[in-house]
Parts: sequence; C-alpha cells; structure tokens
Amino acid sequence: MTFEVTSEFLENLSQLIDLKKDAAIKVLFEEVHAADIAEILNDVDFDEAIYIIKLLDSEKTSEILTELDEDTRTRILENLSAKEIADEIGEMYTDDAAYILSELSEERQKLVINELVDDEHAADIKELLSYKDNTAGALMAKELVKVYETWTVAGCLRKIRRQAKHVSKVHSIYVVDKKEKLVGRLSLKDLIIAKSDQKIADIYISAVDSVNVNEDDEEVAKIMSKYDLEAIPVVDDNNILLGRITIDDIVDVLKEEADRDYQLAAGLTQDVDSDDSILDLTKARLPWLILALFGGFISVSVLGGFGDAMKNFPELFFFTPLIAAMAGNVGVQSSAIIVQGLANNSLRGSLVKRLFKEVLLSLLNGFFLAILLMSAGMLILGFEFKVGLTVAISLISVIIIASIIGTFVPIILDKKNIDPALATGPFITTSNDILGILIYFLIAKTVLGF
Amino acid sequence: MTFEVTSEFLENLSQLIDLKKDAAIKVLFEEVHAADIAEILNDVDFDEAIYIIKLLDSEKTSEILTELDEDTRTRILENLSAKEIADEIGEMYTDDAAYILSELSEERQKLVINELVDDEHAADIKELLSYKDNTAGALMAKELVKVYETWTVAGCLRKIRRQAKHVSKVHSIYVVDKKEKLVGRLSLKDLIIAKSDQKIADIYISAVDSVNVNEDDEEVAKIMSKYDLEAIPVVDDNNILLGRITIDDIVDVLKEEADRDYQLAAGLTQDVDSDDSILDLTKARLPWLILALFGGFISVSVLGGFGDAMKNFPELFFFTPLIAAMAGNVGVQSSAIIVQGLANNSLRGSLVKRLFKEVLLSLLNGFFLAILLMSAGMLILGFEFKVGLTVAISLISVIIIASIIGTFVPIILDKKNIDPALATGPFITTSNDILGILIYFLIAKTVLGF
Repeated sequence: MTFEVTSEFLENLSQLIDLKKDAAIKVLFEEVHAADIAEILNDVDFDEAIYIIKLLDSEKTSEILTELDEDTRTRILENLSAKEIADEIGEMYTDDAAYILSELSEERQKLVINELVDDEHAADIKELLSYKDNTAGALMAKELVKVYETWTVAGCLRKIRRQAKHVSKVHSIYVVDKKEKLVGRLSLKDLIIAKSDQKIADIYISAVDSVNVNEDDEEVAKIMSKYDLEAIPVVDDNNILLGRITIDDIVDVLKEEADRDYQLAAGLTQDVDSDDSILDLTKARLPWLILALFGGFISVSVLGGFGDAMKNFPELFFFTPLIAAMAGNVGVQSSAIIVQGLANNSLRGSLVKRLFKEVLLSLLNGFFLAILLMSAGMLILGFEFKVGLTVAISLISVIIIASIIGTFVPIILDKKNIDPALATGPFITTSNDILGILIYFLIAKTVLGF
Repeated sequence: MTFEVTSEFLENLSQLIDLKKDAAIKVLFEEVHAADIAEILNDVDFDEAIYIIKLLDSEKTSEILTELDEDTRTRILENLSAKEIADEIGEMYTDDAAYILSELSEERQKLVINELVDDEHAADIKELLSYKDNTAGALMAKELVKVYETWTVAGCLRKIRRQAKHVSKVHSIYVVDKKEKLVGRLSLKDLIIAKSDQKIADIYISAVDSVNVNEDDEEVAKIMSKYDLEAIPVVDDNNILLGRITIDDIVDVLKEEADRDYQLAAGLTQDVDSDDSILDLTKARLPWLILALFGGFISVSVLGGFGDAMKNFPELFFFTPLIAAMAGNVGVQSSAIIVQGLANNSLRGSLVKRLFKEVLLSLLNGFFLAILLMSAGMLILGFEFKVGLTVAISLISVIIIASIIGTFVPIILDKKNIDPALATGPFITTSNDILGILIYFLIAKTVLGF
C-alpha cells in the first residue's frame, strides 16, 4: 500500500511543470498522501518544489510542509512571503505551526504571526513558542476537546460536535471544573454509552494522568509509553489544563532519542545526516577524533617506554593492535548492555553482584579466546611458548579490565547525570586501548623479565 | 505524576505479606497503575511476587502480567496452573494474550487454550498464534469496531455500543461490505456529527490505509509513523478485514528495532540484557570477539611481515595502535551516518557525489589531525622529520580509505538485503584496523625506503 516514487512519475511531473499544465499536476497529486508528496519534493529540483508548493491548495501544502525534511522546508520558506507562510500556518494544528515557526528567525516569526487571520490561533501559537525547547509545553497542541463537569451528556455532545471540528482525532475528552482545572477524563465511547440526561460529573473518570508543562519531553515519552497512553493532557503548576500531547509526537521524540544515542556511540557529537554541509559534518566528527588522536598519542608514549624490549622480543609489538582492539570491543559490548539497561530502567541487583558476573563472564570469554590465540600464534605463526603465554595472560586480563570499565563508566556517568551513551563511544574505546596496551606490557615485563 | 517505588513502600509491603494482611495489600495497590505494580514485582522477592499475583483480581493481574519483564513473567507463569493462566489470559486483549502465550511451550499453550471459557476469544488467540513472528498478523489484535456499509447511523451507534465494550480505545470504525471486505473507515466523530437516519455508505471515507497480514512489522511501523496513523486495519490477500494494529504496539516495535541496531553496532549478536544468564551473554558476545581476534591475527601477520624495519625505525611500531584506532573511529563515524540515512530513508544524491564528499571531508579532517600529530610527535616525543611525515601521510590516507569503506559497506549490505547496522559493528573496526596498518607500513616503506 505504500506509494512508490517511480522515475516515470518524476519524469512525467517534470514535463508537466515545464509545460505549466497546472490542472494536470493537481490531478496527479490528488490521490497522493502529503507525506509522499513531501518525499517527492525532497527529491525534485528546488525550483520545481517551489512551483508545486505555490500551485497546490494551502490545505494540502500545509500538511506537506509539516512532513518535509527540515533542510528542504527551510529553503522553501525562505522563498515564501510572510503572508504566504501565514496562509500555510493558518491551516496547521498549533503544535505543527509552532514547530515550523520555531525554525524561522524571531523577526520573521513576528511578521508571520501578525499576518495570521485567526487571532485565537495566533495567540495559541505564540503561547506554544514561549515554552522552552524539549519540554511538554513545546511539544503539546492547544487543540483538545474540553467539557465542564456541570454539563449534561446531551449538552456535552452538542458542544463536542462543535469543538471536534478543530481536532483531528479525539483521544480523550478532558473534564475541567469552573476554574479550568483538570479534574478527569471521558472517552467518546463513554459518552455514547451514557444516557443523554446524565451529568458529566456523574460519569467522568477522575483518575487522569497528566504532565506538567515544564516536564522534559523524554520524560513525557517514558510516561506515555510506560502507561500505554495515546494522549496525555498538559497542565500548569495550578493544574489548569493547557494542552495535550499525542502519541505520534512521542514516536518522534523516541526516534530522535534513539538516533542521538546511536550517534554518540558512533562518536558523533552532534545530530548530523549525510546531506549536511562538510563544515557541519566536520564539527560533528572532529572532536572525538582529536580525543582519539590524543589517546593514540598516549599509547605511543607507553609503547615508547617499553621500546627496549624490542631487541629481545620483537613479536610483542606485533600484538599491540590485537590487544588494543580486543580491549576496545569488549569495553563497547559491556557498556552497550549497561546503557540500554539504564535507558529501559531494567538494571536490577547490587553493584557487587554485577561486578562478580562481569568478571566471571570475562574469564569465560577470555579463556576461550586466549586458548584460540595461543594455539594459533604458536602453530601458525611459530611464536615461542613464553611469548604465546604472555599474550594469552594479557588477553584475559585486558578483557576482564575492559569489561569492568565498560560496565561501570556508564553507571558512574548516569549517577552524575551525564548521558551514559557517551560511554559506548570513542571514550571507552580510547581509554581501553591505552589501558590494554599498558597492562599487556606490564605483564610481558613480568613474565619475560626484560 | 510518576509513581516512585520507595524503600518504605517495599518494606511496608513485605511486612503486610509476612502478616498475610491480604485486605491491606489490596488497598495498598488499589490506586497503583498496573505498570507500576509490574515494576514492583520485578524488584521484590519471587515468592512475594507470586503471593501478590495470586492475591489480586485477575482483571488487575492480567494487566500486570502484560507489563512485566519477560524473565519475571516466565517464572511466574511456571508457578501457575493452566487454569490459572487461562483466567489471566481470558481478561486480556487478544494481541496481549497471544503474545504471552507465545512465550510458553506449544504443549502448555494448548492446555491453556483448552481452559479458556470464551470460545470466540480462544479461536481469535489461536488464529493470532498461527501467524509468523514479526508479521502484522502476529502484532495485530482481533478487537475492533466493524460496521457494514448498508447500516444506518442510528443502527450503527446501537451496534457500536455493544462492540465497543470489548475495545479499549476506538480509533477508527472500519466499514466492510457483505463479504467482510474492507471498503472504508469512519471516525466516531463523523458518526456523532452525522444525522441518525443517514446510511453508512453515504458518510464513510473510502480512502483507508491497510496492511497485509504477512507484512513485516518493521514495515508496518514505517508506514504508520510516516502517515501518522494511530491504528491501521490488517487484511488478508482478498482484502478481508482480519484485525487492527494500534500505535502503542508500533512504539514497541520501533524501540526493539533501535535497540537491535544499537546492539549490532556494539558487537552483540543477539538481544540480551544485563540480567540474562552468563551463557546467553557469552553467546551474544563471543562471535564478534572471535571475529575481532582473527582480524587481530591478520594484523599480527602484517606487522610481522614488516618486522625487518624494526632495526632502523622502531618508532614506527609505536604508532600502530594509533593508526588502527583512527581508522576504526573514522570508519564507524562514516558508517553510522549512512546506516541512519538508510533507516530514515533520507539518503539522496548519486554515489559519485557521496564519494567525492567523503574524500573531501576526510582530507579536511585528516590534514588537521596530521598536522596536530606531526607537531606533537616531533616537538614532544622528539621523532625525526621523516618518521613524522610518514605517520602524517599515513594518517591522512588511512582516514580517507576508512571513511570510504565506512560509507560504502553499509550501502552495499543494504543493496544485498543485509541489515546495514552490521557494518557499524566490529566488522568495520576490524577490517579498518587491518587495512589501516597495511597502508601505514606500505607508505612507511615507500617514504623511508626499508
């Protein structure tokens, strides 16, 4: 059922634009979902995208704009007047409108808001823009269905018919008292099942989850997915109902969070995608690389310190990348498990028990790998027993220490309120590299006595 | 508004259980959400968990079971009879029921299903169990509100009142023809706004998104989040309406997908969490470590092949971990950006353009890092110019090649229908390690002439 953008479709579209066959273009897009049109606009030439946006009705283009990639949207909005943007914004729900406006300069925001025809809509959008980024307030929409506890079911249905026109999907009906304080909720279903002369006060459910307008959006996502909520009302400190957040917004928050963790683990310090400028990509990539370079520098010094061993045991130096790589890999594995446990709130049991388990696990893995390494090193590469033994003992030690570091660094970061996902990145790899090499040569020195 | 499990609460609970104050325990849990009780049960002693499950009403415990960690749930279900499990399952929606049953052995599944009182419910669950894992069929619920196009609005509302009792949240009302084929949808809102003597055929919306019962669940997640759908009907090859999938299930699918990608990138071959057994953890961790070990082995051989250079240029060998680490880090960064681009369907432009951009970016980063390395190496560690130059040139070359590999390996994997997330894992690190070292020594050989 997904719409596929074929090259024929794009060619056909280009031709129609060249020939300025506006009516045909409109027909072409009639049955296509806004999200699909957005994908097409991300792909076509910029001039064509502008042409299509200016051609289609604002009812449709407002949806398309909401779905576009931020880069494409920014470029398109730069080519529209404040009045044209206001026409688009006027068709959007308040949350989408505020989100898109927030991408403009403050000056331009004001110009667009002044052009909005509906004063109430404008006031709502202004309110949403006033909340801090990444809070419930910045995420919520003002559109909701609200009834007073004193109303009757019949009266309520009448009012809802009017309110519901502005609300795309009615998840819950929120019940407020005279002072606009949230007191409960009601589903459309409950309302349909109730008798028409019943009072709302008699049928509403007073147990209603809500979040404060200043709550962090990732916390809201956690609450909504934990309690399987499809919408949650947002209140201020006095419990006055301000707006609602729906689960589709939460899906976006969760995605962004997962993307960020993934990028941190890969050593990218800011949110980038492959279409960003080389400067942005460099900014995201260089900081960790510099850190890794300095880490590498330390390992150079460590190796230099053991340089004298080269005369008698040159083979030792052939194994350094292997030891470093194993330390890095084990560290990342251990920390990834902890980072996910912290994110899913599923870490249980004491630290001592966890330590014991990691050591046991590492011993098991380490022994197996060490035997593999020793036999292969001696049989295939012909190293002498003492060197093989040194490398094997080092491998086990390095694996144990790397897994302990991988386990505890994220736990410590989390306790200090630093994102533990940082730990799976180059930070763990680099420090385990250095430590691994140091341990390796210290053991070698002891065993081989140089 | 989140419920916090305090240590006082847990102590109080333990005491009440010791004293067998059942009524007091019930009161204690009365106002607590099932998801919170599940968290408590994950934490308390196992005997206490069983005690609580057997004490509370099945209406509540069925919800709690759905929310429990799989490990805890498995242990609890082992302690319940088929009849007791059937009582719990009987209270659940079909999708939750089938999901939990799927965790039992086939034999036990049959025993439990035989104990179910409601035959229709049992048949629905059996049907859901028959679909393959990770398909729309395995994810959907049978509960939905369905009306025939020939009905009137008034008749429809009557029927819905009855059907809706079994459906927690009415997202959409699905309209079918006489042959049960899906022909359209209707929102409760539309129904309330319509006149009571209108025919459904006149008011329903025929544009209805649906997915085939055999569709991959990640594909369903993509469709639902792309089109912002809160529920989607599931049909068979003949377009017969079979069930529906709601967005909260999709949130779980997206989370699992993100977790899996993250784990793959960290070198874990199966889904594990820190509470899994040492055997399971070893199974997840060892395969990549063995691969990394073999990779390390190759690097040992490569270094061994250049062993003669050690006499004249011992410093060269101090830099191998640095070169390998930089190659690994750059490779992971490049591949992570591509993997996310593939996942979000946001990769645009030709391969040649991408290649050009990566090379330019790497040159920029590489130059900067090389200058840093050379000046630090010569000034602080006192290496001679020729060695510094060799390392610097190698660093730039290695960064360019690692970033090209990091960029194209995931693209190639994706084209071959292999999960590109594999590429950010130890696979890229290991191959870049080896290649990095090889390039480094080849360049050294050319520049220094050994």
